Amino acid sequence: MEEVKIFGHKNPDTDSIMSSLILEGLEKTLGAYNVKAYRLGNVNKETKYALNYFGVKEPELLEKVEEGTSVMLVDHNEFAQSVEGIENANILRVVDHHNIAESFKTAGPIFYLGMPVGCTATILREMFKVSGIQMDKITAGLMLSAIISDTLLFKSPTCTKKDIEVANELAELAEVELNTYGLAMLKAGTDLSDFSPEELINIDSKTYSTNGVKYQVAQVNTACIEDVFKNKEQIESAMNNFMQQNSIDLFVFMITDIIENNTQVIVLGKQEIAEKAFNIKLENNSAFLKGVVSRKKQVVPNIDNTIV
Amino acid sequence: MEEVKIFGHKNPDTDSIMSSLILEGLEKTLGAYNVKAYRLGNVNKETKYALNYFGVKEPELLEKVEEGTSVMLVDHNEFAQSVEGIENANILRVVDHHNIAESFKTAGPIFYLGMPVGCTATILREMFKVSGIQMDKITAGLMLSAIISDTLLFKSPTCTKKDIEVANELAELAEVELNTYGLAMLKAGTDLSDFSPEELINIDSKTYSTNGVKYQVAQVNTACIEDVFKNKEQIESAMNNFMQQNSIDLFVFMITDIIENNTQVIVLGKQEIAEKAFNIKLENNSAFLKGVVSRKKQVVPNIDNTIV
Repeated sequence: MEEVKIFGHKNPDTDSIMSSLILEGLEKTLGAYNVKAYRLGNVNKETKYALNYFGVKEPELLEKVEEGTSVMLVDHNEFAQSVEGIENANILRVVDHHNIAESFKTAGPIFYLGMPVGCTATILREMFKVSGIQMDKITAGLMLSAIISDTLLFKSPTCTKKDIEVANELAELAEVELNTYGLAMLKAGTDLSDFSPEELINIDSKTYSTNGVKYQVAQVNTACIEDVFKNKEQIESAMNNFMQQNSIDLFVFMITDIIENNTQVIVLGKQEIAEKAFNIKLENNSAFLKGVVSRKKQVVPNIDNTIV
Repeated sequence: MEEVKIFGHKNPDTDSIMSSLILEGLEKTLGAYNVKAYRLGNVNKETKYALNYFGVKEPELLEKVEEGTSVMLVDHNEFAQSVEGIENANILRVVDHHNIAESFKTAGPIFYLGMPVGCTATILREMFKVSGIQMDKITAGLMLSAIISDTLLFKSPTCTKKDIEVANELAELAEVELNTYGLAMLKAGTDLSDFSPEELINIDSKTYSTNGVKYQVAQVNTACIEDVFKNKEQIESAMNNFMQQNSIDLFVFMITDIIENNTQVIVLGKQEIAEKAFNIKLENNSAFLKGVVSRKKQVVPNIDNTIV
């Protein structure tokens, strides 16, 4: 039977990695497809912590897909965030908690399950329930890790009641104390000391395209903004290189303090869009955005509304 | 509580009407929203037959929605097929069995359930199962009618194993003999004698837009192609008027014989697209397409692939 490849977005975060592995497990149990989970980039420190904790190996790297390859997408649907060759792949399923992007297109009707919740893993939890499949401790642990990561331990405005309810249920199944495990995992992800500026802007970076404006929003989580911000000049130089190489019109780099829940942005390119979007005046290409932590809910919609 | 409007596509077919009524019932039982089913156009004779059979009133007509109106879409997602004002509505849910259209767009993530099956009602049947809600005889009858209609009693290439399985289950719940009821319902829909040419081309007519080409595909079902085709000149004149009024580049009118499963098309406008799409030569603007019955599977993809 032909292999069906499952993967999340480029620059994978914990939800993208875990949801690929979880859907792989679910589909294997259902038995209709010969599935395998992949990753589209390096696994970050937070995800590594969670994988180690539950004793799970990271998926293999996937660099591109040939025409006609059968795939399932989790945690994204925008083609710019997907694998090289996605335009000519055979998309069988999408499970996602983002907007359906303009770029998303299939030749025929497919299984598409989108839900307005904080994390793809929360939707997968529903799919387990619907399928009547028992969940094991490890799967529960991977799901829980994804929810903690995407909702910043329920502090992100993207977090819903459903995410909290599911996470509490999963913590019990995974046999962990939710807050203790969650803080340890998030903290493992904030150690940015051995990243070069080029790596920093690629840890969790997404490309968007709206009305002809191609823009990039990258985000790093930290317990101390200054630790990252002190390397502003080198970061800006990496951002400039990235913009030139990828024809990006606007680059927003978010340094997010996950303890205090604020973000310092560095903005290059069409700065006027960002200034209008956030109603701010940049100083030396930067501004402090109080209470902003979510790219999806507090950054991308503002930029999109400004471009329109 | 604000009213949430549920509706299918313009020129509603049986699936669009029944799925609106079925989702209304489901959401009322779930109780999270104050929902009401609507229709975006006249109810056709086939649908009327089914509604009468099960003693259900047709939904009210909806002509447009104000900015910010909360809505749920069934059986469509293409904005051109939806209600006037849909661009600025607040879309809460979509349940559909079509491709996700380029035009489909929401401000944030929503509940979107798409499945590659022959009928929206088949997906709604799954939603009933998932919710653990008991199905009554009348709801089963409406669902069954939608499946019979969309799959032409399982003869359409869009029909899947799932549709047949669900329909058989529903026939039992609805207490009808599937074939007898199905043929009677389909036959009720083929009585086109009192339709004017303008009405004929609007019974089940959809607008598509691909790479800047705006085209219309209308379909009527009949037990005898000649009964409709004899009024070709008047139909062409109605098609021409429609194209001018709505800036349509290409109009394909399908006269489908649901007994023999063939279609006679009348094509106006950019005829070269249709000739290439179906590998035919039109004679007097018309051609016979053997074995073609499905707009979604055998007509629209061919045209789209030719335009690209």
